[in-house]
Amino acid sequence: MKRVILIGLSGTGKSSVARRLSARLGFDAIDIDDEIVKLFGHGISEIFRRQGESVFRAAERRLLEDACTRPNLVIATGGGAVLDEANWVSMRPESLIIHLTAQPEELIERLQRQVAADSSTVRPLLVSNDPVADLERMWRMRRPYYERADAEIETGGKSLEDVVDDAERLVRAAQCGELPLPIGTLGVPTGRSDLYVASGLLESAGRLIRRRFPAARRAWIISDSNVAPLWSEPVRESLESTGFEADLLAVPAGETSKSFEQVSRLLDQLLNGRIDRRDVVVALGGGVVGDLAGFVAAIVLRGVGLVQIPTSLLAMVDSSVGGKTGVDHARGKNLIGAFYQPQLVIADPTVLATLPEREWRAGWAEIIKHGMIETTATGGVEPRLLSRIENASDAELRAVDFMASIVTDNVRIKRAVVQGDEREAGLRRVLNYGHTLGHAMEASNYRYVHGEAIALGMRAAIALAIRLGRSTEIIARRQNAVLDRLQLPAEFDGELAEVMEHIWSDKKAVSGVLTWILPGKKIGIVDIVNDVPLADVEAVARAIGAR
Amino acid sequence: MKRVILIGLSGTGKSSVARRLSARLGFDAIDIDDEIVKLFGHGISEIFRRQGESVFRAAERRLLEDACTRPNLVIATGGGAVLDEANWVSMRPESLIIHLTAQPEELIERLQRQVAADSSTVRPLLVSNDPVADLERMWRMRRPYYERADAEIETGGKSLEDVVDDAERLVRAAQCGELPLPIGTLGVPTGRSDLYVASGLLESAGRLIRRRFPAARRAWIISDSNVAPLWSEPVRESLESTGFEADLLAVPAGETSKSFEQVSRLLDQLLNGRIDRRDVVVALGGGVVGDLAGFVAAIVLRGVGLVQIPTSLLAMVDSSVGGKTGVDHARGKNLIGAFYQPQLVIADPTVLATLPEREWRAGWAEIIKHGMIETTATGGVEPRLLSRIENASDAELRAVDFMASIVTDNVRIKRAVVQGDEREAGLRRVLNYGHTLGHAMEASNYRYVHGEAIALGMRAAIALAIRLGRSTEIIARRQNAVLDRLQLPAEFDGELAEVMEHIWSDKKAVSGVLTWILPGKKIGIVDIVNDVPLADVEAVARAIGAR
Repeated sequence: MKRVILIGLSGTGKSSVARRLSARLGFDAIDIDDEIVKLFGHGISEIFRRQGESVFRAAERRLLEDACTRPNLVIATGGGAVLDEANWVSMRPESLIIHLTAQPEELIERLQRQVAADSSTVRPLLVSNDPVADLERMWRMRRPYYERADAEIETGGKSLEDVVDDAERLVRAAQCGELPLPIGTLGVPTGRSDLYVASGLLESAGRLIRRRFPAARRAWIISDSNVAPLWSEPVRESLESTGFEADLLAVPAGETSKSFEQVSRLLDQLLNGRIDRRDVVVALGGGVVGDLAGFVAAIVLRGVGLVQIPTSLLAMVDSSVGGKTGVDHARGKNLIGAFYQPQLVIADPTVLATLPEREWRAGWAEIIKHGMIETTATGGVEPRLLSRIENASDAELRAVDFMASIVTDNVRIKRAVVQGDEREAGLRRVLNYGHTLGHAMEASNYRYVHGEAIALGMRAAIALAIRLGRSTEIIARRQNAVLDRLQLPAEFDGELAEVMEHIWSDKKAVSGVLTWILPGKKIGIVDIVNDVPLADVEAVARAIGAR
Repeated sequence: MKRVILIGLSGTGKSSVARRLSARLGFDAIDIDDEIVKLFGHGISEIFRRQGESVFRAAERRLLEDACTRPNLVIATGGGAVLDEANWVSMRPESLIIHLTAQPEELIERLQRQVAADSSTVRPLLVSNDPVADLERMWRMRRPYYERADAEIETGGKSLEDVVDDAERLVRAAQCGELPLPIGTLGVPTGRSDLYVASGLLESAGRLIRRRFPAARRAWIISDSNVAPLWSEPVRESLESTGFEADLLAVPAGETSKSFEQVSRLLDQLLNGRIDRRDVVVALGGGVVGDLAGFVAAIVLRGVGLVQIPTSLLAMVDSSVGGKTGVDHARGKNLIGAFYQPQLVIADPTVLATLPEREWRAGWAEIIKHGMIETTATGGVEPRLLSRIENASDAELRAVDFMASIVTDNVRIKRAVVQGDEREAGLRRVLNYGHTLGHAMEASNYRYVHGEAIALGMRAAIALAIRLGRSTEIIARRQNAVLDRLQLPAEFDGELAEVMEHIWSDKKAVSGVLTWILPGKKIGIVDIVNDVPLADVEAVARAIGAR
């Protein structure tokens, strides 16, 4: 937790609390409204009158975004900042967001006292004929936004010191992990995903889901025959303890459940069970369950609430984040589906302890993939994920705390990519590193699970990059050593002809053109390349064993 | 066509052309960049430096929006205005948007000449080391946005007078309908729909679709067994003439095609035919085809391009606009689906000539519904749709030109509602006027087509509103007289108990609460009401014939 952000209606004391709280924490304080006034050189009502509210909001957005890159800061926001989704994306990562609240009558009284004490204060609300009614109307409209805060402090009847005490207690709780904070928010035009990663979250799932869906009545847990016996009870209990009616729908474990027929069965179960628009689907499981349940949530009643609780390593670091949902078709994998963002992703690495060894290894393939694309994905300078894996001891790779931090890194990388390109028109394609050949190898020999095939695909992709003079042996050795360490396959057992046929049925083969993601000459950098000769592709596929 | 908007890169001459063209047309001219400078009191590079680009863009957005409410105007935009989707929504209705283009080398030369002639001119582009390369990069990025223009003028090697001549010719073509312009754009977070309504558009469909999908290869026309024999050939020819490969998939006519099984069959056909991501689905038909094909387009390959070409009156004035897609389930209608905006809606009222009489009448029910909600829907003062129908002669109601203008009014009303509330969280619910009981009556007696049931629902709803003291007999008489004139049913033939049961299976019955849209005391105004006693509902259902 690097900063505290105060939100709430005018008069709730955001500026004063920010000043006092920052002094206690040894942080700086910043008041966004004050900064806007400095920027324009005249007061807020003047900005509204001359440049218009939208210009004011744009300035607010920019200043808040800047402030949210700084550590050790308490930020007082303007009352309306919460209405802009872009501000939530800026505010979310590494911040504790506290909502200061009070009764409208008390707020008006406080505003009147302020104006009486300092005649230079302008409070537009007080100009109205019925300020209490106006404030109540504003409260009704903004309430769902304020309720997104991580915590709330009722300021009514409390002294400033009392409120600051409450706020300080919340900061301490967040710092020691008692108050779960999202590690970030993925904001795209179609929705907003709050992303939580921490050990023990499974038991707080109900609380987090209730905070995001205050009016929901029922939760439909969709899981599979492997995961449900292990984890559905704690999730159900946690949901029921926060007032949900919780139902469990379990599908058979395995890729065969990602079928249109299974979608049809689940739709029947939900509709016959009288699901309604405010209900929430909770996808509890690995990639198959997440993709299947996500798609069902996207199309039942034209879309209901969706929470992803990934239980496999692959789902935690990859498939649960980013809103891709769907099922398979005889023609290929994931050919039917929708982009549909879960409102919440809750990843609890403690559940990884029960993961079968092979699935655990396969999950690492996507982590290593993120390590190979990190710089391009985040636009950052220094990649760190790959070397963190290289430097970790075997014991660390199995430790819950280390995994929580690795999952967090991965979710951040994935978030950075999807944020800018939800529908895979540009940057998001880099997530397909290792997938062009990997998917084809997976389709050619169903004995490989997805991660294993991707590992093969990455080995082939870097060989291809070197062949084309785009990457270097040093980078190939680093990638392959990490893949070897995780005992991911080095040799493909299958027919070249079949691989080459499957490569063309990939849904990403647009108008007969294949897209390759190829490493560059530094770790973490990849390029999107279209004109790769098929002879080279065949050569590298043969080199890793294709017959 | 009320105004001309010029878009294009810096140096293409937008400001000069705007001044000269406005003089020829007797219009005013406005240069948005100049207006922004006036607003801030300092130059654009200063605004970028001090307030930041996002503040500049917000001001641009507001000024452009204001300008686009004024008639008889030629607007010169800044080069980057096209990047903001909100600007497209402002620019679209009643504007001819012309893209001025030229080779980068020529643009740089022109900018250098300008700076030489007037040393106060600041052109940030010229500060760069390689301005041509920068401009080329900018061009590649912006090109898809500029290509959305209604027409393009290549300015290379032409004098200003020549360019103005070309522009004037385009204005004349648009004024006499030779150059089809959209009547508006529906912009929501998930996409942008350009809305075209005009006689004869069916034969221009290929041109309009190509303009929106410059890189598409194949078009999949989905139609039904009634419509395909009549209209699929002209559409196919038009598509092929603009370079599309066009395939026709026809489903049996009728509501039974709105099934999950039919979705599955269409997905098989598309995927076995190797549909790819850049392909376009063209829904050619009435409401059933539009809902079904729209849903298939939404979920195949997680979404491909979609064009709605409505051929029934109901589809033209209602279901083709707004992005609701879906199919029925044993539990009720439209329970499975997605919100998915078509990129284009092309409504050609000439096709209404072949519409069966009963479907034509049923379509009028939704038009009358729009008349009853017009003021609330648009936020406008004076409703006009209902009185236009009251005042029209019988001949007019059958005339293509009158219908083009009625359809345009309806599409505008629907657009206004959906624009603010795509997912039906608030305002969009007013479109359900007449639907709460109407849907239940439709489900209770399948002999009614949708529009007939909605007519019954509207008669019941206004009776309910009067019973609750919310509306008046005068309004009821006006609504019912228009329904009578279109020979829409006045008496329901079915069981009360069944209606009351179906009312609860409506997917809009959230957590056991029904939502009613009830007329107020002026034509065009409706309220959203939740607490209607069931006894009153039963009474009005009985009053219109329920047994």
